[in-house]
Amino acid sequence: MSDASELPVGIADVEAAAVRIRDQAVRTPLLGSAALDARAGGRVLLKAETLQRTGSFKFRGAYNLISALDPAERDRGVVAFSSGNHAQGVAHAASLLGWASTVVMPADAPPLKIERTRAFGATVVTYDRATESREEIAAALAARTGAVTVPPYDHSMIMAGQGTVGLELAAQAAERELVPDQVLVPCGGGGLTAGIATALADRLPRAVVRPVEPAGYDDTTRSLAAGERVANAAGASSICDALLAPTPGELTFAVNAALAGPGLVVDDDQVRAAVRWAFEELKLAVEPGGAVALAAVLAGVADTADRVSVVVLSGGNTDARWLT
Amino acid sequence: MSDASELPVGIADVEAAAVRIRDQAVRTPLLGSAALDARAGGRVLLKAETLQRTGSFKFRGAYNLISALDPAERDRGVVAFSSGNHAQGVAHAASLLGWASTVVMPADAPPLKIERTRAFGATVVTYDRATESREEIAAALAARTGAVTVPPYDHSMIMAGQGTVGLELAAQAAERELVPDQVLVPCGGGGLTAGIATALADRLPRAVVRPVEPAGYDDTTRSLAAGERVANAAGASSICDALLAPTPGELTFAVNAALAGPGLVVDDDQVRAAVRWAFEELKLAVEPGGAVALAAVLAGVADTADRVSVVVLSGGNTDARWLT
Repeated sequence: MSDASELPVGIADVEAAAVRIRDQAVRTPLLGSAALDARAGGRVLLKAETLQRTGSFKFRGAYNLISALDPAERDRGVVAFSSGNHAQGVAHAASLLGWASTVVMPADAPPLKIERTRAFGATVVTYDRATESREEIAAALAARTGAVTVPPYDHSMIMAGQGTVGLELAAQAAERELVPDQVLVPCGGGGLTAGIATALADRLPRAVVRPVEPAGYDDTTRSLAAGERVANAAGASSICDALLAPTPGELTFAVNAALAGPGLVVDDDQVRAAVRWAFEELKLAVEPGGAVALAAVLAGVADTADRVSVVVLSGGNTDARWLT
Repeated sequence: MSDASELPVGIADVEAAAVRIRDQAVRTPLLGSAALDARAGGRVLLKAETLQRTGSFKFRGAYNLISALDPAERDRGVVAFSSGNHAQGVAHAASLLGWASTVVMPADAPPLKIERTRAFGATVVTYDRATESREEIAAALAARTGAVTVPPYDHSMIMAGQGTVGLELAAQAAERELVPDQVLVPCGGGGLTAGIATALADRLPRAVVRPVEPAGYDDTTRSLAAGERVANAAGASSICDALLAPTPGELTFAVNAALAGPGLVVDDDQVRAAVRWAFEELKLAVEPGGAVALAAVLAGVADTADRVSVVVLSGGNTDARWLT
């Protein structure tokens, strides 16, 4: 493990984020489920970020970053690219803070996510995922308008904001007199994992933080095993639209290589079963990408026997298509 | 308002129930939603009994009653009649306490509820709602086997158990430094309303407790207005299978006439919209009967402007049929 002081985000950043977002973000509940404990053969607690503003944890990082910008520059606006959850987080955070926002979204993003991003006040610009580069479109927009880019994960303020999930779950587990052995975190670009790992390195240093990824998009799992950033093969598909990052972020990987892993991988069938189980047994709407950590428990991919595990349910922006 | 000391349940009974169920029932979260506040024009908090064991508040009353029985008589077992949520509450509470259970359910109850009741360990006996009397079947079973009947609402121990919802929401609102002006409660036989009204008469005496009922099954609303128990017209239909009681209970009405009302009524379309809204915006699975109080807010049937309102989401045992 490398010296934490060399990492791009630290516990002080996460604690500052917690203060910044305190009055706007939901302190989401840490839920228990006797049915899940029985399935897992151990104690499992669910950090329900599905109940966060905008339906995912992304609001935390977006609000943390935008609220730290100079309000005198509000007229420049902010710009982001996202398949959906970060889009909504940025749109809503910007709107609460009086910033205009433009979000670059793939034309094939879930229609619900595009619609909700507009409803939260953003101008949505769509692009063709196969032929256009969202980074280039966003950069061109930023260059033309002077807008500040809010990246989806590879930024210390974003990781710090997401890390408040870790501060909360540590405190909430302590309120129940439980000490988590492991925390399973849905992982796309790695910002949520990096933030939680940063928080828990301080609050629960013996807990293992494990990123969970969909098959075909297991870049963080393989990168952690290889000790360097590796990319996903082109052309993979997954129902986890929220987790389709091509490689780990540069900054997120630096943190995760030091503080998290090894990773876990689940396939689409295991995710579908988890989404249905969450609805029927937990009474929670969870989107496929938000359900991968739960899927790892239900499918036995994670070792939960006789342990205290925390499962992060990272997002719930889905329609009912997975339930029937 | 009559003298509280004449009522069939009092605050001491609810407080004793809270102690009895403490280690088994979930202290369900009191959730906030900025989207709901915006819709309501006031502050709305959601008491999510959908996240209770067995997916509804019914576990509280059942566990309270059965845990107070003499364990030496366990071999007699318990018997109950229910369209579904009370069935699951009794089956699970009985099983945790080592009692066998038999539950009389209508043959046309939602298959999910029958299946889950069996999964919680009960023997299920079905009957024809049109031609048979569930009370007679349950009474015959009890007479034959010596089983103890666990009534769905008209019993002081059941009302006391459900009243723990009121103790919790009062404490949870206080933790947020909010003082509810009104509490909207889904109402079938009236046990949950009576329990909550009993708890809040002590903890939040200025809060108005309002039962909310589906059109066609608005017996409590009309009874409160008439000052005496009146029945529903035969042949009414509603998608709120959990709330189809023919009349208010004798004991529940005595409490509710003293401490609750006036009632509110919502129609099936308003309930359908609320079930969908709960899934899409709140990310919660709520069954039709569990969503009537939310429907009253969303449809503007309840006056929520500039007030602090608590909405009880009483159950979530549904499949996805209402979402598509």
